[in-house]
Amino acid sequence: MRVCVALLVVLALGACGRESATAPDATVLPDKVYQWKLVTTWPKNLPALGTAPERLAKEVELMSNGRLKIRVFGAGELVPAMEVFDAVSQGNAEMGHGAAYYWRGKLASAEFFATVPFGMNAQEMNGWLHYGGGLELWQEAYAPFNLIPLAAGNSGVQMAGWFNKEINSLEDLKGLKMRIPGLGGEVLKRAGGEPVTLPGGEIFTALQTGVIDATEWVGPYNDLALGLHTVAKYYYYPGWHEPGPTLEAIINKDAWESLPPDLQAMVKAAARTVNDDMLAEFTVRNASALKTLIYDHGVQVRRLPDDVIERLREVSAEVLAETGKVDPLTTRVYESYTAFAKSAREYHALSEQAYLEIRD
Amino acid sequence: MRVCVALLVVLALGACGRESATAPDATVLPDKVYQWKLVTTWPKNLPALGTAPERLAKEVELMSNGRLKIRVFGAGELVPAMEVFDAVSQGNAEMGHGAAYYWRGKLASAEFFATVPFGMNAQEMNGWLHYGGGLELWQEAYAPFNLIPLAAGNSGVQMAGWFNKEINSLEDLKGLKMRIPGLGGEVLKRAGGEPVTLPGGEIFTALQTGVIDATEWVGPYNDLALGLHTVAKYYYYPGWHEPGPTLEAIINKDAWESLPPDLQAMVKAAARTVNDDMLAEFTVRNASALKTLIYDHGVQVRRLPDDVIERLREVSAEVLAETGKVDPLTTRVYESYTAFAKSAREYHALSEQAYLEIRD
Repeated sequence: MRVCVALLVVLALGACGRESATAPDATVLPDKVYQWKLVTTWPKNLPALGTAPERLAKEVELMSNGRLKIRVFGAGELVPAMEVFDAVSQGNAEMGHGAAYYWRGKLASAEFFATVPFGMNAQEMNGWLHYGGGLELWQEAYAPFNLIPLAAGNSGVQMAGWFNKEINSLEDLKGLKMRIPGLGGEVLKRAGGEPVTLPGGEIFTALQTGVIDATEWVGPYNDLALGLHTVAKYYYYPGWHEPGPTLEAIINKDAWESLPPDLQAMVKAAARTVNDDMLAEFTVRNASALKTLIYDHGVQVRRLPDDVIERLREVSAEVLAETGKVDPLTTRVYESYTAFAKSAREYHALSEQAYLEIRD
Repeated sequence: MRVCVALLVVLALGACGRESATAPDATVLPDKVYQWKLVTTWPKNLPALGTAPERLAKEVELMSNGRLKIRVFGAGELVPAMEVFDAVSQGNAEMGHGAAYYWRGKLASAEFFATVPFGMNAQEMNGWLHYGGGLELWQEAYAPFNLIPLAAGNSGVQMAGWFNKEINSLEDLKGLKMRIPGLGGEVLKRAGGEPVTLPGGEIFTALQTGVIDATEWVGPYNDLALGLHTVAKYYYYPGWHEPGPTLEAIINKDAWESLPPDLQAMVKAAARTVNDDMLAEFTVRNASALKTLIYDHGVQVRRLPDDVIERLREVSAEVLAETGKVDPLTTRVYESYTAFAKSAREYHALSEQAYLEIRD
């Protein structure tokens, strides 16, 4: 197969500024420079979570040879973390990076596109989203907000969190003041605890002063950076509440449609790159940070007792089933999610899980 | 941040044909069309393994707006499967797709860049390669062959295989004729079995006629397609011999260096896309195919007995340690691999593995 191309291109253009909506159509204009703003829910350059959108922007600029420049803003630099969705929806920024469950107040289905208690892990989420109909449902859910979602990272299974009270039985959850947002918090509440919502920046002091007894955060890499081991006695596992959160890139639909197909393909490929890369980074950094926490800082790692796990699992199923009844779209999302989760669990019982169990 | 660009580009070119080595330097020539050949070790369009390089090629063509066209050849179309490495090394094709362990005869370290018995799973391989120094060692290993390697897919944990003899204890491995290539075969041999090497196309008949007692292949998705359930009694798990094989894209170094940086970035991003995507596809298709095998075809799924697993694990450690002594580079690869594998195992015992165990 051979291709002959004869081009006569005469271009004399001064393409200044940031406006992209003036592209006349979706053909390639090799001269046109698109300038995008990407707002994030993370502090600027937060390890892994915050560096992923920086990498995404860098890859796109390199691939596009500077035709699409994406400037990344940390939380609060352009808009506060919790206004990222609205800012991109309204076109005040062309792109955003965060996690779908932050937008649960706007759409109940959003929980399932990030992570839910006792739900799928990273590998399974990637399967459901890209080959199990998940991404199509996510696109449908975000369409009324003029947004296009893409998977753009995953932290893997998180840790259950840092505790200043020992958890030896279900009784110990009674009255436990724990920073744990969202569905995980709702589950804890029904299991007897007192969930508290606090932004990341206030966790350390709240734990130090005894305002809270416990907190979840991310995993060893980010937890070590935040110094949580200096203000808590025990580090519990496994992280039942966030078994593989997908991070999202969201794109304003008008901005997206103004891009020619080649730049759209680059944005998608950069998102997939980050999706693959963040989990790789977390896997290595978490493994290393766990050793530092245990061997250098003497952190006591504990497993949640079986009766606690069993109760949390029962309550999680109830909470998810209720969430799945909120509106017709969420019902379809819940049904798709739970059907694939069951299928993946059956297969992974014989493959990933069975393998992890025999290798020691 | 604003950027002003003024371009005056006058191009009148007929860029015909496939030669890329004539690019004068690594600056962007928006008119130049590069035509590459990508040879693979897979039959044309073999599910997942063979469709991944097709997708890689399609993504690059879309992103480059046709500036880099990659034509994909199945095994035997241009060169036989086992000559892919040499063909790309010598520049007869610019690119290849396969698995590093096929080249163990040329370099002992290659095993570790694909998968080894009782080694790392997909998530851990991605970590080691991209954040644990693995890719740098891989590049070093392939440099003398004028090749640049990239991770480009993973099948996840494979199944132990199809058997016509029941395996109830270590005794049953004695004299077992099993199609299992490479290190897995060496391990089986030391554990009492008789490994046989057969190309994929001959497995079905060999199992049907009793020439072999057992075979490994890939996982439910590919195994179902090959019809192995019609000629074998038992489907054993877990796949101890290939716990997460990384597939590779290899690129001829001269061809790579002839590309401008933007096209290089697109090839890398397309490889990462495929790396992320293949595991997602396998996760969904394997889960679905397993159900078909069990519920529609009545396949009997069995777990390898503990004493068999224990012996295979012991022997695997011996075989890997011996492989790690073959030459100085392989020693460094072995040490890097085993150090990170240990670290990842410790972390995943508290995260991925602990989570998979509590969710049922």
